Amino acid sequence: MFGVPDPTSHSVLMTDLYELTMAAAYFDGDFRASASFELFVRTLPPERGYLLAAGLEQALDHLEQLHFRREEIEYLRRHPMFQHVSAEFFDYLGRFRFTGEVWAMPEGTPVFGGEPILRVTGPIIEAQIVETYLLAVITFQTMIATKAARLVEASQGRAVVDFGSRRAHGPEAGVLAARAAYLGGCIGTSNVEAGLRFGVPTYGTVAHSFVMAHIDEQRAFRDFARLFPENVILLIDTYDSLRALEKIIQIGSRPKGVRLDSGDLAELSRQVRRRLDDAGLRDTKIYVSGDLDEFAITRLLAQKAPVDVFAVGTALVTSKDAPALGGVYKLVEVCQEQAGHRRALPRYTAKFSADKFTYPGTKQVFRFAGDGGCYDHDVLARAGEQYPSGEPLLELVMKDGRRTCPATALSAIRERVRRILPNLPATVRELRNAEHFPVRVSAALEDLLTEVREETLR
Amino acid sequence: MFGVPDPTSHSVLMTDLYELTMAAAYFDGDFRASASFELFVRTLPPERGYLLAAGLEQALDHLEQLHFRREEIEYLRRHPMFQHVSAEFFDYLGRFRFTGEVWAMPEGTPVFGGEPILRVTGPIIEAQIVETYLLAVITFQTMIATKAARLVEASQGRAVVDFGSRRAHGPEAGVLAARAAYLGGCIGTSNVEAGLRFGVPTYGTVAHSFVMAHIDEQRAFRDFARLFPENVILLIDTYDSLRALEKIIQIGSRPKGVRLDSGDLAELSRQVRRRLDDAGLRDTKIYVSGDLDEFAITRLLAQKAPVDVFAVGTALVTSKDAPALGGVYKLVEVCQEQAGHRRALPRYTAKFSADKFTYPGTKQVFRFAGDGGCYDHDVLARAGEQYPSGEPLLELVMKDGRRTCPATALSAIRERVRRILPNLPATVRELRNAEHFPVRVSAALEDLLTEVREETLR
Repeated sequence: MFGVPDPTSHSVLMTDLYELTMAAAYFDGDFRASASFELFVRTLPPERGYLLAAGLEQALDHLEQLHFRREEIEYLRRHPMFQHVSAEFFDYLGRFRFTGEVWAMPEGTPVFGGEPILRVTGPIIEAQIVETYLLAVITFQTMIATKAARLVEASQGRAVVDFGSRRAHGPEAGVLAARAAYLGGCIGTSNVEAGLRFGVPTYGTVAHSFVMAHIDEQRAFRDFARLFPENVILLIDTYDSLRALEKIIQIGSRPKGVRLDSGDLAELSRQVRRRLDDAGLRDTKIYVSGDLDEFAITRLLAQKAPVDVFAVGTALVTSKDAPALGGVYKLVEVCQEQAGHRRALPRYTAKFSADKFTYPGTKQVFRFAGDGGCYDHDVLARAGEQYPSGEPLLELVMKDGRRTCPATALSAIRERVRRILPNLPATVRELRNAEHFPVRVSAALEDLLTEVREETLR
Repeated sequence: MFGVPDPTSHSVLMTDLYELTMAAAYFDGDFRASASFELFVRTLPPERGYLLAAGLEQALDHLEQLHFRREEIEYLRRHPMFQHVSAEFFDYLGRFRFTGEVWAMPEGTPVFGGEPILRVTGPIIEAQIVETYLLAVITFQTMIATKAARLVEASQGRAVVDFGSRRAHGPEAGVLAARAAYLGGCIGTSNVEAGLRFGVPTYGTVAHSFVMAHIDEQRAFRDFARLFPENVILLIDTYDSLRALEKIIQIGSRPKGVRLDSGDLAELSRQVRRRLDDAGLRDTKIYVSGDLDEFAITRLLAQKAPVDVFAVGTALVTSKDAPALGGVYKLVEVCQEQAGHRRALPRYTAKFSADKFTYPGTKQVFRFAGDGGCYDHDVLARAGEQYPSGEPLLELVMKDGRRTCPATALSAIRERVRRILPNLPATVRELRNAEHFPVRVSAALEDLLTEVREETLR
């Protein structure tokens, strides 16, 4: 393995087997069609009044580089499921690229249940195969960006930083979570890969182990502070937080911050603040960590804990109270090539099973603002509809399998989030019992639903 | 990006910044020591009486290939945090490899709170830097393998298959979850990458979109069944499950299975089973999916739903009811080189903050069986202790940075799990209100704790 980069993250096989069996069935059944799929979250998880769309960059990266490596094709050829599939299909996989188009909400856009975050249109095999990857990468980052925004909301202007990589669902999840957390309003992350790869500002303090490795806690502080004089944040709770603080003051260190990680954080942070100020260390900030979430932060601030930076781990990178979004990727339109016709008519599709249905046809979401720019309601409409006073949220981001414009800097996306989030009604941003934002369905879309339902179920 | 494999999964920078600043402080402070760290879960999450250790293979892969690429070193050199760090440190990073040793529980071993799953011993910088990655990759797979075992327990002999990739925390999490789910007792996964990479059996049915893309549902069934005659599993709930079943029977298809995904699954599965049997399709199995977890499976079986295979998604790949383990990686022993001494004595370390403490020193876990092989209790002991009647669980798996033996086949690990899990008391395997398995601490370890506490806090 040594020195060989792991190609996992972009493998086309990071998908469900049925995407590939359906591909074979379309190919060998000579079913040639263009199809549109829309990716959306059916309903928001508990306590969530909105989501922040995220993960589009990684989705587009995947689509641009999608191809089958030789050993992947060989694996499928030998798979018992594919024993009757034609040799031509495997040749086709060797040439396979994504050539379709993508419309999407820009990352950082507030989005609600049922609204498409992304729409893929292309040859049906191409648009189908990417389902699993797109859902995983977009709904995960959307979930984490949303959680970050909640933590930032709770922190009332104090900083929130992501320290959760070790509790993420594997190494890659930590990197993606760091990206989404920054996008959602965190000041940065401890994850260094996210720093290198996405430009997320990286932060770090020092671990208990560093203190424990030294016979003398004070010596540990001195050695560490000497190397990082402007930036050192010292962890003081390894044995006794207040005694550790005295040791720092004694050696004349002026740390950028001290970190508390256990005990009564409200009381301790007050004592530490008082002692720091008495010692003339007014610029030394207090970092707090230790199983924090938006509710713990709210309680600490209600107790007037003088915390400057909340370092959040598990709750952030796993979105612990709501660790999954019900993301789906639904076929909404199919346009089958037919012999003798220059151009086939689109057919609108929807699912009407016992307890679920989906709206047919490609869609656009229009956002309407009231006085002062505050968002008032959305309209979920058919793609061709026009609402001059509403802002259309889905934009063309990929054509013929290539991005239509360069990626937006992550810091710019984050700035946009900070600018537009306050436009959401406060009731929708509540941490508990958030209200639903009004999403209306256009008359034209309701009519289409009725039409397709009658046609499909007759 | 095209064609360039993504190196993310194994980057040494998939770590927290403080691991690297501590490395710099050890290096520039000329602190040369060998250190031992132990990775364990402090307390089990709610409703869990045991965990199944998993993820060791990926941990060892990471350790064997660990190195800094040129651009990673450049990134650190330019990082404001590292402005006072010596040039020699960056040269050292260029040569950096993991040269230490690892003791670990074999994958699939039942493990309890406070028991080390893995111990790393090596030069302190090497053993420290890998903390974040090891925690993420081991605790995630351990959590998923455990969840899989719960689902298998609930299914009372029916099969459970992982269909969750799209709801996983990013693409890599789906692959790792598929591996852990198989290890924990699932029959396989929908994730094709996990099939290629880990040999996990892959399963698939067909999506609603395939039915929707065809004007005629029956035509869709026929086209799909024709290509996969022995293996086809047809999804029948796109519009109306019972009507869809009639269409399948009419065309004379003999599918391997039919999948239900919505509605009253207990009632529907009974009706479907009856109709299948009447039509002579006794070998056609019933697959059920749709937000299943161990409790939904228990309810379905209590209602005598004739389900053959439970396809589980979100609940499995996110361990939804307990989406994080409190995994920690603690320094337990440090042996500092000192001028003039041939061999330094080890110093045992522990953390004694306000509400947490850890046991010092390297450890071994001994498992004791009662009559009939049923596990009776564990003893958490010092590494050098001997208990001839107990089974030592931690084994040497890496020496001088290289595996001591080839990887065990995943299917063999899975078989071992199936063999040994029944040795756990039934009360510990309960899905609700599981009892704690008795883990005793040896007298020698308690003595060491007392000694180190007095020494550290005096």
